Amino acid sequence: MQERTIQKNSIYNGKIVSLEKHNVDLGDGKQGVREIVRHSGAAAILPLTGGNDVYLIKQFRKALERQTWEIPAGVLENGEAPEDCAARELREELKMSARNLQYLTTFSPSPGYLDEEVYLYVATGLYEDPALQDEDEVLYTEKINLNNLIDKISSGDIKDAKTIISVLFYLKFYQ
Amino acid sequence: MQERTIQKNSIYNGKIVSLEKHNVDLGDGKQGVREIVRHSGAAAILPLTGGNDVYLIKQFRKALERQTWEIPAGVLENGEAPEDCAARELREELKMSARNLQYLTTFSPSPGYLDEEVYLYVATGLYEDPALQDEDEVLYTEKINLNNLIDKISSGDIKDAKTIISVLFYLKFYQ
Repeated sequence: MQERTIQKNSIYNGKIVSLEKHNVDLGDGKQGVREIVRHSGAAAILPLTGGNDVYLIKQFRKALERQTWEIPAGVLENGEAPEDCAARELREELKMSARNLQYLTTFSPSPGYLDEEVYLYVATGLYEDPALQDEDEVLYTEKINLNNLIDKISSGDIKDAKTIISVLFYLKFYQ
Repeated sequence: MQERTIQKNSIYNGKIVSLEKHNVDLGDGKQGVREIVRHSGAAAILPLTGGNDVYLIKQFRKALERQTWEIPAGVLENGEAPEDCAARELREELKMSARNLQYLTTFSPSPGYLDEEVYLYVATGLYEDPALQDEDEVLYTEKINLNNLIDKISSGDIKDAKTIISVLFYLKFYQ
């Protein structure tokens, strides 16, 4: 059970994503076309205080044309280990570091056409640790109680996959 | 807090995804570039039996170059309501229909560059209801106990976002 590439066309090679189109052999004499979006992967962090508060990032997401609340996250830089990316993004987006960075899990946001994988961590023992911000990001942070965040996931106010998975995974398997 | 498009380039218009590149005004005199992957959205169904078993689909995912186990899902057709898509995919992929199709939530797989939204449902009261299969899909189904599925999510064996979110969301808010 495999799909062998017969012909591959590179359509776009960008900053965040690349796009390929593959003609594939489905293995039973039939053929198909697969559009594949390539992404270098990301790390995301659930930043949890001793008082059960979570820091979220508010930003405008152009793809959705609206503001979202999400846990801090960022794209893996060339050769960067996911836990280093998590620590870097925590500093860049939240101006904080964590005494404990615990790996939770890895998920594929949309395996039908996207190769991105997102590595999830929970950060505790947070302390202020200023760093430079990315030049093309405009970010606001807010502290929200974990129970309030759970309500916003339940109601559908928060739709971001990495935020939903990190919170529900942490609650189910680490609490 | 908004990002106004100054210039938009349509790079690709495909079967599953389209790709655009926007030059945007960040609102503080600075500019940025946003790559946006457009997708028409999807519906996915957690098919749950009275015996607490879940039907999963095994298929080869070209973007990941491996087989995955995922709940049944599919892309919204032009103008199709998410619940109609969910019922259709249940028939096409599982050859089943459901007496009860309960909406769970909607998530954004990767809001940084992707506009896809996935509508999640839990299906109970399942019964056999044959239908034609998509020609370019090679699918196998397996029934797995919900507790076994929870273990596979906990261990990271199952990484698919829609499968993780539907199971954890159902357990947290509907059980």
